[in-house]
Amino acid sequence: MELLEQRILKDGVVKAGNVLKVDSFLNHCMDVKLFQEMGKEFARLYEGAGINKILTIESSDIGIACITAMVFDVPVVYAKKTITLNIDGEVYGAKVHSFTHQADYTVIVSQKFLGPEDRVLIIDDFLANGCALEGLSDIVRQSGAELIGAGIAIEKGFQEGGRLLREKGLRIESLAIIDSMNSETGEIEFRHE
Amino acid sequence: MELLEQRILKDGVVKAGNVLKVDSFLNHCMDVKLFQEMGKEFARLYEGAGINKILTIESSDIGIACITAMVFDVPVVYAKKTITLNIDGEVYGAKVHSFTHQADYTVIVSQKFLGPEDRVLIIDDFLANGCALEGLSDIVRQSGAELIGAGIAIEKGFQEGGRLLREKGLRIESLAIIDSMNSETGEIEFRHE
Repeated sequence: MELLEQRILKDGVVKAGNVLKVDSFLNHCMDVKLFQEMGKEFARLYEGAGINKILTIESSDIGIACITAMVFDVPVVYAKKTITLNIDGEVYGAKVHSFTHQADYTVIVSQKFLGPEDRVLIIDDFLANGCALEGLSDIVRQSGAELIGAGIAIEKGFQEGGRLLREKGLRIESLAIIDSMNSETGEIEFRHE
Repeated sequence: MELLEQRILKDGVVKAGNVLKVDSFLNHCMDVKLFQEMGKEFARLYEGAGINKILTIESSDIGIACITAMVFDVPVVYAKKTITLNIDGEVYGAKVHSFTHQADYTVIVSQKFLGPEDRVLIIDDFLANGCALEGLSDIVRQSGAELIGAGIAIEKGFQEGGRLLREKGLRIESLAIIDSMNSETGEIEFRHE
């Protein structure tokens, strides 16, 4: 998606350790107009797929997921990272490893909000090693819902997650796929298939 | 706001300990169409106030904040609850007590995203004791931005937060103010001033 790629080139900052900082428009300060264009692109890509629910994971993804859900005219369910006092009843759960936080955590979704009648699009801001996406996919499987695919803002194409999950049959649409990035020169190269 | 009050009466569940569960439409499964109507109501209430940034706090508030930001046509900044590896540079910070999680935590906002040029609306899903709102207000003060007011989805009017913060001069617009609720009968009474 040209608009997102241009924005990454303009405002993204490549840091050592394969970190791409996009906090000025994606995940700390949020450009909701950009999110709307991203939502429209996801809607174009998944047109006719009968999606009736969007699943995401807290926190930063919730903004993109909600704006995308406006375009799709469907509700959002987000997976919570810890069991709070406010979650009761039965939940679906999956363990996820976060490389950002260097820790494992459990994500949960109340069984009330996902079931066999659902056709699910997973929205995530980043795809790198694929751990979060795999955890969410597992939750969809547990619920008996149909997993139509995933919509990713930025995929780090030089990491394994996208390839491995596509090989397992998951449809993944990433709006920007980064082939390589260099923290010394700041250069970013995108993949166009 | 009639629409929100009716939805609380229909789908909200009163639990012991003054807990109101609204996870089926507000903070686990998210009805983005309702959020859009809420955003329009905030825009009506704050019309002409020159708001150019919305500030919120992760996680569940991000959805309402982003949809509201679409209506206002401004960006969202959300305060993060822990210092992650992805936040660098200087931050504004405030300590907040969470009664839900029974713990103190620190919220931070990068100094890059809030400054004297900003006229800020704080969006929060719940106002009870007012700790989160007070922490966010403190961050706005630190930044030199002007705090125009707060937009709250549900205020627990029987708790102290709203009264104390209004007495300090903060403008607070709550779309539904609960005067009393009863976990045994399930009854909820709203305040209309």
